[in-house]
Amino acid sequence: MIYLDNGATTPMDALAVEAMLPFLSQHFGNASSLHALGAKSAKGMRDARQTFADALAVDPAEIVFTGGGTEADNMGTRGAAMAASPKRRHALIFALEHPAVRGQRQFLEGRGFTVEEIPCDSEGICDVDALERLIRPDDTALVAVMHANNEIGTVQPLDEIGELLEDLCPQAHLHVDAVQSFTKLPVRPRRMRADTLALAGHKIHGPKGVGVLYVRKGAKLRPLVAGGSQEGGRRAGTENVAGIVGFATAAAIAVENMEADAARMTRLRDQLIESIAQRIDNVALNGHRHKRLCNNINVNIRGARAEIMLHALEERGIYVSSGSACHAGQTGPSHVLKSIGLTERDTGSLRITLSRHSTEGDVQACAEALPEVVPLAR
Amino acid sequence: MIYLDNGATTPMDALAVEAMLPFLSQHFGNASSLHALGAKSAKGMRDARQTFADALAVDPAEIVFTGGGTEADNMGTRGAAMAASPKRRHALIFALEHPAVRGQRQFLEGRGFTVEEIPCDSEGICDVDALERLIRPDDTALVAVMHANNEIGTVQPLDEIGELLEDLCPQAHLHVDAVQSFTKLPVRPRRMRADTLALAGHKIHGPKGVGVLYVRKGAKLRPLVAGGSQEGGRRAGTENVAGIVGFATAAAIAVENMEADAARMTRLRDQLIESIAQRIDNVALNGHRHKRLCNNINVNIRGARAEIMLHALEERGIYVSSGSACHAGQTGPSHVLKSIGLTERDTGSLRITLSRHSTEGDVQACAEALPEVVPLAR
Repeated sequence: MIYLDNGATTPMDALAVEAMLPFLSQHFGNASSLHALGAKSAKGMRDARQTFADALAVDPAEIVFTGGGTEADNMGTRGAAMAASPKRRHALIFALEHPAVRGQRQFLEGRGFTVEEIPCDSEGICDVDALERLIRPDDTALVAVMHANNEIGTVQPLDEIGELLEDLCPQAHLHVDAVQSFTKLPVRPRRMRADTLALAGHKIHGPKGVGVLYVRKGAKLRPLVAGGSQEGGRRAGTENVAGIVGFATAAAIAVENMEADAARMTRLRDQLIESIAQRIDNVALNGHRHKRLCNNINVNIRGARAEIMLHALEERGIYVSSGSACHAGQTGPSHVLKSIGLTERDTGSLRITLSRHSTEGDVQACAEALPEVVPLAR
Repeated sequence: MIYLDNGATTPMDALAVEAMLPFLSQHFGNASSLHALGAKSAKGMRDARQTFADALAVDPAEIVFTGGGTEADNMGTRGAAMAASPKRRHALIFALEHPAVRGQRQFLEGRGFTVEEIPCDSEGICDVDALERLIRPDDTALVAVMHANNEIGTVQPLDEIGELLEDLCPQAHLHVDAVQSFTKLPVRPRRMRADTLALAGHKIHGPKGVGVLYVRKGAKLRPLVAGGSQEGGRRAGTENVAGIVGFATAAAIAVENMEADAARMTRLRDQLIESIAQRIDNVALNGHRHKRLCNNINVNIRGARAEIMLHALEERGIYVSSGSACHAGQTGPSHVLKSIGLTERDTGSLRITLSRHSTEGDVQACAEALPEVVPLAR
């Protein structure tokens, strides 16, 4: 099997599974229990929290564990909107946000917010000039811009956006979805001036069902899941200790190896992009050529149907995706592809996403299979 | 180790861990992915959903997987309140509810709800006559009554409450927290006329970080975690497949063995209650003598301090709790104990909770140790 759908989910790191096992068996205490079994679980949580604090260069008290990246995105947007001053009822959401963020529009409008979209250019880069014009210094409560896009991998100028907000509207809450960028790029919420920032375990060789929300000390946030003092009252419920420990273990490994891994993935990515351009005609890269995640290749193979290529590749043991898993089953290009100018007739976009475990052989196999399957799909 | 704190959390069933492992390694696909790896995960989810549908005698489409019991309780109360007709702004919450339900008061009041408490008698049984008087047929949107209490184990007359609601106020949404009763008693949401009903994995020898919300077909509910079509749009986010499969495996085992296990736990419970009454003076059972969970013993040892007994028992290898893990660190009796008439001076309540793995030897050891530790704590 050649798995090149790591943007959807990743195989778990064997060491992360191993780290979870004791917490699925003998160390089963409730982290809130006063006895030694509880203390053992609490210790696992404390170490995990420190791992994320180190990885993001923040304080452990600013780390909140959640039930996944989507929940973290919901907390960082909806939770901030609920806590905002009633005088501020304006929200700005970047055009390419993940549905976990975009999907808050209805809730926000129900709470009296005016929601506007921050546009992007044809390569998927956030239009910072437009953002500057859209900000309402006395009214904007929430701005959400992702660090890197989940479909086309475009990396956003968060440092610039953070500075702009600091100048024009320091009261606005900035939420950053860093689910795809974490362990691919340095993620520094303080440098970005993020108030909240979301991570997900299963995108970085950790388990599904666990996420992290960085919450800047002093940031105003209402809990989504209330009724318990866990996570400093910010997220109630018995903690998923095994999942949290597994996520932290995967994060520690990936962060430690990030520089070398990212360099290698960048090389493999560029090889594959070049090979596709050489071997297949009428093809275009979706997203920016260089300001993109080291593990993301997304190509528009004009006149082809993605589902046919996907299944023909699968028959050859190669797993990729059309769009993102979150849009699976939907026909036509996603909102992301439409935002960068694709139309209903562009049905041939494939997303190929590498991981730190991807090899030169994986990429070569994909480069060789693609020219075989494209004619079947055109 | 003699673990008698199963109301806080339970050791995982070895078969449930075993069932999870493939989904933490080779079957790692995103259940939304279109390829075979995704289908494998989707199949695991489908089987798990059927297990819960069978266990509750409902349709698979009525099962929603969540990130835990607390999230399920939040969805069933807050999510129902958000979806209620704006003409209905009255909510009734039972006095002994878990903080996951009680903790919604602030949110509900913030949405314009008047929240009232349904009282209980001195044994912790819901006062159905009072409920009848409190219901406002044209205004009540939400009623929350738990199936069995997490501290004192009292089982509530849900069938009677469901009938009352059906007669007086069929438009009201009834949420039932069945986190503690599931696999101890038959749980039948349809017979209870529940609109939503919450379960948690880690209370029944499944993993932490996973829960179930039964949602009656046709019940109105707004999602807490939005932005994705997972779980029929009712709970967004990549599914925790391993956790869900582990929970379902534990549930299937416990439900299959429920009758025999409950009979055995009832016998052990009654032995321990009797032994405590014989060997320790000035002691009273908290909660109802018979209308209580088969695994719950909660005694008020007058004039003693619970923390001292708890730690003295722990030195003897016996794990119990004072109150619930959710109240750990709080001094004085919990809201549950106060609701049944205990005062600030009653600091000696111990909760001893059995599981299907508890043995006669466990209970005997506890019965022998308690009379030794009580004098230290008085």
